[in-house]
Amino acid sequence: MTTAPDAHRSAGRPRTAVLSRERILEAAFTLADVRGGDFTLAALARNLDVRPSALHHYFAGKDELIAGMRGQLTTRVGDHGFDARPWHEAIVPWARAYRQTFGAHPGIIAALATLPVDDEPESIIDYERIAAAMSRDGYPVHRIVPAIVAIESFVIGSALDSLAPEDNLRPVDNAELAPNLTRAEAAARENAAAQRHSAVTETFEFGLAALIAGLLAAGATG
Amino acid sequence: MTTAPDAHRSAGRPRTAVLSRERILEAAFTLADVRGGDFTLAALARNLDVRPSALHHYFAGKDELIAGMRGQLTTRVGDHGFDARPWHEAIVPWARAYRQTFGAHPGIIAALATLPVDDEPESIIDYERIAAAMSRDGYPVHRIVPAIVAIESFVIGSALDSLAPEDNLRPVDNAELAPNLTRAEAAARENAAAQRHSAVTETFEFGLAALIAGLLAAGATG
Repeated sequence: MTTAPDAHRSAGRPRTAVLSRERILEAAFTLADVRGGDFTLAALARNLDVRPSALHHYFAGKDELIAGMRGQLTTRVGDHGFDARPWHEAIVPWARAYRQTFGAHPGIIAALATLPVDDEPESIIDYERIAAAMSRDGYPVHRIVPAIVAIESFVIGSALDSLAPEDNLRPVDNAELAPNLTRAEAAARENAAAQRHSAVTETFEFGLAALIAGLLAAGATG
Repeated sequence: MTTAPDAHRSAGRPRTAVLSRERILEAAFTLADVRGGDFTLAALARNLDVRPSALHHYFAGKDELIAGMRGQLTTRVGDHGFDARPWHEAIVPWARAYRQTFGAHPGIIAALATLPVDDEPESIIDYERIAAAMSRDGYPVHRIVPAIVAIESFVIGSALDSLAPEDNLRPVDNAELAPNLTRAEAAARENAAAQRHSAVTETFEFGLAALIAGLLAAGATG
């Protein structure tokens, strides 16, 4: 499993803690981890022991709160040397960190993934860093955004996939229906073990390398 | 099966409509589209005007219901000639249909994507068809499942991405922070228009082609 240790336990926090943007976001992650993305601001206020109106000093509404959550996750993903390394190298640790960070909050991945990003400076700065590196490295300008979105879609889908059972494509009850799949799943598991990776990590690394290689080749032909 | 009088029943449906697996699944999709994946069986029973116990003749619990929903979507995705065409050709219309089918039910993508698949013969049969084609075409056996999962992760992430605003990476309020991203986003939009595609479709097609090319190349080297 690749989910990061839960950093959002708020036990021991004094009831009189001063309300802050940080504290609201922390409580929102805790709530979303339990309730999924469709929690209400009223429920969040209840968990924080404040009136709903107190939240409005920090976030005008749910969309703005979700944008703040996404911005904070983007900051946690971090830079990975796009200014100093070729984009196709720096993007590998970026994609790994992105999968881990978003995979730690499965209840809200869908809400985060479909949110408009323009309201969050953190996300815009993150994308700008990647776009600048690709541009500097001569990637065709009209392919830069499609390539970033392709990697992001793969990472988001992989974050969801990493929440499925480790042996998810292993036929058991229906093995007689699927001799090829049964053989292939066993071979993949053996290969991952030989690489000392979990199957889900080996699968992610294989797919990520293939996608980046494919994007590089597509960029070279225009 | 028990039907109770209820003023909120859907208009036009006869009061005595026979409960069936099909009808339950249809109501479950309707409910999930509104409520997301965390609806209860009690709410579903209410929408169908039946007692919760009536649902248990068809689905032992929520997991089994979600498995049934996934199985039905998989059937809608359909076969795309894996027995007659090279896997890397047949997978293109399969991936397009998959994105459209799952993208039509965004509220439940996350639940569907993380579900164990072994309980659904439809999904196992679908994966077996692809695994058999890849095996026949000489794809390395230990790479077959990772390649399928990579494409599926990309498709699921793209289905979520296609729900975001069309111009999602277009900096507006924060354009001054992102000159490279602004240029790249405009170029991508112009290119999509020239191809008479929506930007989201052009992005999906570019990423899918790059991923498949990368997976083919990785398979050729073992």
